[in-house]
Order: sequence, then structure tokens, then C-alpha cells
Amino acid sequence: MRLDKPVPVKWIADFIGAGIAGNTDASATGINEIHKVEKGDIVFVDHPKYYDTCINSAATVIIINKKTEYPDGKTLLIVSDPFEAYLKLVNHFRPFNPSSKNISDSASIGKNTVIMPNAFIGNNVIIGDDCIIHPNVTILDHCVIGNNVIIQAGTVIGSDAFYYNKKTNRDIHYKKMNSCGRAVIEDFVEIGANCTIDRGVSGDTVIGAGTKIDNLVHIGHDTEVGKNCLFAGQVGIAGATKIEDNVILWGQVGVSKTLTIGKGATVYAQSGVKDSIDGGKVYFGSPVEDAREKMKELVWIKRIPQLWEKVMGKKAES
Amino acid sequence: MRLDKPVPVKWIADFIGAGIAGNTDASATGINEIHKVEKGDIVFVDHPKYYDTCINSAATVIIINKKTEYPDGKTLLIVSDPFEAYLKLVNHFRPFNPSSKNISDSASIGKNTVIMPNAFIGNNVIIGDDCIIHPNVTILDHCVIGNNVIIQAGTVIGSDAFYYNKKTNRDIHYKKMNSCGRAVIEDFVEIGANCTIDRGVSGDTVIGAGTKIDNLVHIGHDTEVGKNCLFAGQVGIAGATKIEDNVILWGQVGVSKTLTIGKGATVYAQSGVKDSIDGGKVYFGSPVEDAREKMKELVWIKRIPQLWEKVMGKKAES
Amino acid sequence: MRLDKPVPVKWIADFIGAGIAGNTDASATGINEIHKVEKGDIVFVDHPKYYDTCINSAATVIIINKKTEYPDGKTLLIVSDPFEAYLKLVNHFRPFNPSSKNISDSASIGKNTVIMPNAFIGNNVIIGDDCIIHPNVTILDHCVIGNNVIIQAGTVIGSDAFYYNKKTNRDIHYKKMNSCGRAVIEDFVEIGANCTIDRGVSGDTVIGAGTKIDNLVHIGHDTEVGKNCLFAGQVGIAGATKIEDNVILWGQVGVSKTLTIGKGATVYAQSGVKDSIDGGKVYFGSPVEDAREKMKELVWIKRIPQLWEKVMGKKAES
Repeated sequence: MRLDKPVPVKWIADFIGAGIAGNTDASATGINEIHKVEKGDIVFVDHPKYYDTCINSAATVIIINKKTEYPDGKTLLIVSDPFEAYLKLVNHFRPFNPSSKNISDSASIGKNTVIMPNAFIGNNVIIGDDCIIHPNVTILDHCVIGNNVIIQAGTVIGSDAFYYNKKTNRDIHYKKMNSCGRAVIEDFVEIGANCTIDRGVSGDTVIGAGTKIDNLVHIGHDTEVGKNCLFAGQVGIAGATKIEDNVILWGQVGVSKTLTIGKGATVYAQSGVKDSIDGGKVYFGSPVEDAREKMKELVWIKRIPQLWEKVMGKKAES
Repeated sequence: MRLDKPVPVKWIADFIGAGIAGNTDASATGINEIHKVEKGDIVFVDHPKYYDTCINSAATVIIINKKTEYPDGKTLLIVSDPFEAYLKLVNHFRPFNPSSKNISDSASIGKNTVIMPNAFIGNNVIIGDDCIIHPNVTILDHCVIGNNVIIQAGTVIGSDAFYYNKKTNRDIHYKKMNSCGRAVIEDFVEIGANCTIDRGVSGDTVIGAGTKIDNLVHIGHDTEVGKNCLFAGQVGIAGATKIEDNVILWGQVGVSKTLTIGKGATVYAQSGVKDSIDGGKVYFGSPVEDAREKMKELVWIKRIPQLWEKVMGKKAES
Repeated sequence: MRLDKPVPVKWIADFIGAGIAGNTDASATGINEIHKVEKGDIVFVDHPKYYDTCINSAATVIIINKKTEYPDGKTLLIVSDPFEAYLKLVNHFRPFNPSSKNISDSASIGKNTVIMPNAFIGNNVIIGDDCIIHPNVTILDHCVIGNNVIIQAGTVIGSDAFYYNKKTNRDIHYKKMNSCGRAVIEDFVEIGANCTIDRGVSGDTVIGAGTKIDNLVHIGHDTEVGKNCLFAGQVGIAGATKIEDNVILWGQVGVSKTLTIGKGATVYAQSGVKDSIDGGKVYFGSPVEDAREKMKELVWIKRIPQLWEKVMGKKAES
């Protein structure tokens, strides 16, 4: 998330009770988790395994649980529990102030846009022109909807990320990573009924212009979907994944987290994508393979009994 | 969709700016897309590949982008973009006039029917007697619900078809085919929570009497489901498919478009039906096969290592 | 379900028009179906195949369609249609009295709990402290929500069980088994957007403390989920199943009814669990196997062509 104005690191150190090292005159302009970090950002790290990645990322301010080496110009804020410090900042700069109205006074609705009964439009939501928001849709705080967007009934935009820190040594087993990001729906997107599009943890979940999504589709936090994609019913896409332009996912396809599906790829129904796949090809299977290869395998399996009889000299019982 | 009264083809030609050939005294009584066409209907065709099918269908009026041969008595309306002409007619005869009330004044609700809070009932919806419509259900314009129907919370009836015309040579990649059809739910149907049942593009999506549907089920546009079917949770059925009576689909089954599942077929959980299958049998797999054959295949796969050792004289590394 | 106070069996016999045998002085303290029966309960049985199980269960009162042998102290209530008698009792002791308000006057909401717009909270619902109930959530009658629970938008808690009696000799093919149980959500549970959690038929569906559930997840009636489980998006779990503590189900996993998943099991995405599986292991496939074994099978399948060439002396056409 972007901060409304730059925040001096000294103020932050004081607010979270941190020791400070490095550049004490810097200011932070955003808060992000490590997958989405930009210059000016605050990030946090609490495991030595990720120290290097965080300290050498674009981030300007690193909240860390141990003083360690760092490049010139960076600021280290040292606290015993960086995750809690990060949550404190998120809750300060983007507090949860639930709207008590169906359409928040701070929401902005474009011209010719129709908001149907029982839709909920949260704080600071921006909706463009010529949209149709059907009944019982929920658009949560800070989300952005472009022009000419249609959202069918019952769909939820901007639900929290499914993102937890495991705390094995505590009563609370999984600690929620509060979502402060947004869901951004670009122009001419259509989203079916009873879909769910989570907000980013700290960045944006994006549905690219012209993409069409059928019913009961789930799209996870921080996932970026390109332009003119087609997702059929009950597709599920996990978090922080990148779907390039013109990708077609048929019904009930599942896509795992933090991977890339290349431009123009087509994935047949019920397939499972667990690693990145190249664009321009057709895939099938769980896990996916080249669709034609996968179809051949199904034929080969049917030949095993014939092979068995030839080799063993008799039929197997089955 | 049926037109409220017959519309003279001369009026239509004038309205859409079409040249006219053939019977200039005919009147149209309905508008349909080619899968659902009846006598009296207007259809459109914009690709020479489908000219014959459309001109020789039951349709009375054909909107077409080139003058061509036609049988006696038919009317051809010639325009440069038949798809746009068709949309213009649909939008004229079934305009989108969103209700601003939870329950539209033009909706008809039968006796002893309970409509719970936050349900939305659109224009011209007809609901029979002794129904329960649970909270946060959405029933969109023109849909028809029989008697003794129960619709669990959050379900959407009559969302738009997932149906687009590809326009590769334009800024708009996919052009929406406006849905003017209905969803028709017959007597004694029960539909679970957070399901989605799309309306027909121009015809009806039908759920036959006595059919019971579990939660999070998706049923596509123009699909016709027979009587006394059982669909378990998270089943997904694409558009324009025919499910005959007494079909049982277990959880997470996916069914592709424009196929037929025969009477009394049972499909085991997570299977994928991509082509028509006969009634009275049991199926499993993605794509489905006879369930018993599929189970045997799973056993045969486990025998490959034994076969390998016999043939190759040694175990394979794995 | 528990009855508010003990009900004498003589009153019950009179109310349902039953003959009475055995202990005529007993009182019933609850109503249950056979999977959930406790001492003091009324159960029903209408098929000789299940007579023994019901009569020798913990139940105190058995509604049955034929006089048969029974242990000392039990009460038999003999009627021609035990199922109808059972429904009559359920409808008497837990009638459907739909609330006409968004938040029923009989609901109890804890301190610091936020109920957002368009949420529906039914009769006798109990919600603890420090919860967030997002917009368009539906929580139906008698359900219980603990403390520090977050329910994302559009989710339905307490929808009816998908549970029918087949009546082949009647006009009504499937007869609804009315749900009188509850859904009980324990402390620190988080439930994603557009999920569905059915109530128990007569007992409780339970989500154990600390469990986190992603979007579009379906959990069936009477299923008991342990503590600190993680269910990813679009998981579906059928009825009367037991998921022990710390189970992880990845996206789109399906779980069948009346089975047990042992403590700490992990099931990979898109897998199907059709029988009970042990805890502490990792599973994959539909149906599931040990994940490593399943992965090896996928490699073995790719070796069939090589085996074919060796045995047959030539490549197969494919």
C-alpha cells in the first residue's frame, strides 16, 4: 500500500519501539510484503533465511529482529517481533473502520453506473462509468473498479487474503497477516456470480482489461491477471500468481501460487497447474502436461493388459 | 425469448437499417440464437459457415450479412453487422431496467411463500406457492420459480450467460452476447446455498421438477436438467447441455457444454464429462469412462513396475 | 438436537399416533438421527436392515414401523411411517419461524463484534466477542459463533443438510429430511468469502478453534473439523465426516462422507478422499494415495511406450 504522505523513519521507530540503524533521515512512502516491494517501502523480515533478500530488495526500510549488515542508505528498524510491528503499522495507516451503510459516503461512483439493491460498496471504493453492480455484490474498502465493468450477483471483491504466519509456540496457531492491499478491476472486465477476488496483502490483485470471468471463480491475493483472458466456471487461482494476456482456463481448473502462465496458454477443464507454464500452448491433466501428450498417455494405459499377456503368457486377474 | 405480440418484418428492417429479401409480409414472434430456434423466430448469422444451418432452421427471419439463397416464405434481413443488429433488437424488446427495490413491484409471489431478508426479486419474476427463498438470494428479471421450491441462502438465479463473440479485429476483444432468456425452476426443486444458475441466452435454462441441488453448484445458460436429479456440492455444468431425468452427479463433477447425459446415469465425484454419455450406467474419471473399467486401469498402472522388471531384467530407478 | 425439557413418551405416542411398547414412563431429552444418537434421544428406523442398530444404540425412544424385540428400559413407538412421525416431532419442537429482520431480536451478539450491512443473523443465533461478520453473510437460526471469529462476505452458515429419503413409490421422489441441528464455529476460526457450512441434520456441524478456511469452501452437515486446520479455496467436504486437528487440505480437494482424516494429514490440491486416511502423512490423487507413490506412478506411465517397443519389437501407433 502507498502511504498518503512520506513518514520519517524516526517517527516509525518511535511508534513501534524499534532500535534504528543506517539512514535515520529517510522517509517511507509505502508498506509492502517482500513479494511486492518498491523503493520507499517498509518491509519486515523475521527469519535469517530471508534477511539477505529483504535487505537487498528495493525496500528503503527493513523491520528486522537482529542487527545485521546492510547497504548504504537503507534503514534498519530492530524489534523483537517484526511481524507484530508490521501489523501495528498496517493497522495504524489502514485501520478497519467498517462502513455502516450499504454504500459508504467515501465511495465514488461514476456516471451511468447502476448499483443494484443489497450491494455493499465500502469506504474509498472507486467505481468508474457505465458499470453494472448486481444485487448482493460486496465491494470492500479501497477497491477500484474501472469503466464498463459488469459484476454479477453475489460476487465479493476485496475479501482478505488467505495468508497466515504459523506460530507453533503459541496458543494462536496461525496468526492473520492483515490485508491492506486492494483489488483492482480494469475496464470492460465482466465477473460472474458468486465469485471471490481477494485483495492484495499489501499490493494489488489485478484483473486486466477485457478479461471475462464465469461464475464461482476464486482469485487469490496479489494475483495479476492479464488482458482479455477467459476463465470458465469454478476456476480457482491461488495467491501471488501471474496470468499473462489471452490465457484461457476452462472449468474447474486449479492454479497454484506464485507461478506464471504464459501469454495465450489454454488449459483444459479440471487441470491443475502447479508450476509455471509457457504461453501459446495447450495443457491438460493434474498436474498439467502438454495436452496431446497427456491424451496419448491415456491411450497407453489401456494397452498395459495386452503387454501383460504377451510378457506373462496369460491374462492377469482384475 | 417470446415477443409480447407479433412484430412485422418491415418494422424490424427499418429499426435495424436492414435490406429485406423474401417474405416482406411476415411477422416475428420470438428472438433466439441458433441452438434454440423455433418457427416465428428471428435469428442472426454472420459467418458463411453457418449460413445453411440458419437459413434452413425453423427460424422465420434471418439477419445475415450477405444476400444468399433462401427457401420460400423466409425473410432475410441484410445488414453489415448481424450481431449488433440482434443486440439492438434484444435491448429494445427486453431492455435492462434494473429494479431499485428488493422485491420488484412487477414480481408475483405465490401464497405461503416466504421471502427472507435481503433477498432480491427482480422484475416480472414469478414465484409459486409454498416456497422458501432464503436470505441474500438473488432472483433476476423474468425468472420463473414453481411451487414448493426451496432456495438456500446466497444463491443466484438468472445471472447472465458466459457467452461472448470474439472480435479479434477490434479494441474490444470479447463482445458480450446479451442474455434475454430465463431460468425456470420447476416444482419441488431444492437448490443449495451460494449456487449460480444462469439464464438462457435467448431460451430457458430449466431445472426439472423434484431435482435436488447441493451447495456451490454452477449451471450454465440454456442447460436443461431433467426431473429428480441429484447434484452434490460444487458440481459445474456448462451451457446448453441436456441432463435427462434421474441423473446423479457426485461432488465436484464437471460437465462440458452442448452434450447429453442419458437418463439415470451416475457420475462419481470429481469426474469430467466432455462428451455425451449413455443413461443407466456408472462413470468415473476425467474424462469419464465406465467406472469399473476406470478402476481396473488404476490397478493396471500399479503393475507396470512388475512388468518392467520381467522385461528389462532389473528394477527401474524411480 | 436437545429438547428444552424432558418430554414423556406417552405424550409423544399420542402426538404422533403411535402404539407404545416397553418403558411407558420414560421421557425423551433429545431427537437425533442414528449417526449422532445419545442416551435420552428419540431415533427413527423404517427398514428391518437397521432395526438392530437402532434398538441397541444409546437411544431411549425408537420410532419403528413394526413391533420387534427390544432391551429392558427402552421405549418403542410403533407407527406405519416412522420418517413422517420423526418430521412431525422435529417441526413441532424446532418449527421454521423465519425472522423478518436482518438481525433477529432473539440473536445474541457479543461485545466489540462488528456486523456489517446486509448480513442476516437468524433466530437464537449466538455470536461471541470481537468477531467481524462481513457484508452479505447469512447466519441461520440456532447457529453458534465463538469469539474472535472472522467471516468474510457472502458466506452462509447453517444452510440445510443435503439429505433426502428416497421414495420410489410416490410422486415425490426425494423427501427432505428437515435439518434441526446447528453449525458451531469455535474461537479464532476464519472463514473465507462465499463459503457454505451446512447445519447438522439433528446434531452439530463443528469447525474447531483456530481453523482457517479460504473462499468458496463447502462443508456438509454434521461434519466435525478439528482445531488449527487449513482448507484452501474451493475445498468440498461431504456430510458426517471427521477431520482431525492440524489437517491441511489444498485447493479443490474433495472429501467424501462419513470418513475420518487423521491428525496432521496433508492432502495436495485437487485430490479426492473417498475412504478414511491416516494422520501424519501426505496424500495425492483422485482417489488419494501416498503422495510419493502417486508421483512415481505418473513416471511409470511415461515408461509404457519404452516397454511396448522392447516387448513388441516396434513402436505402437498413437
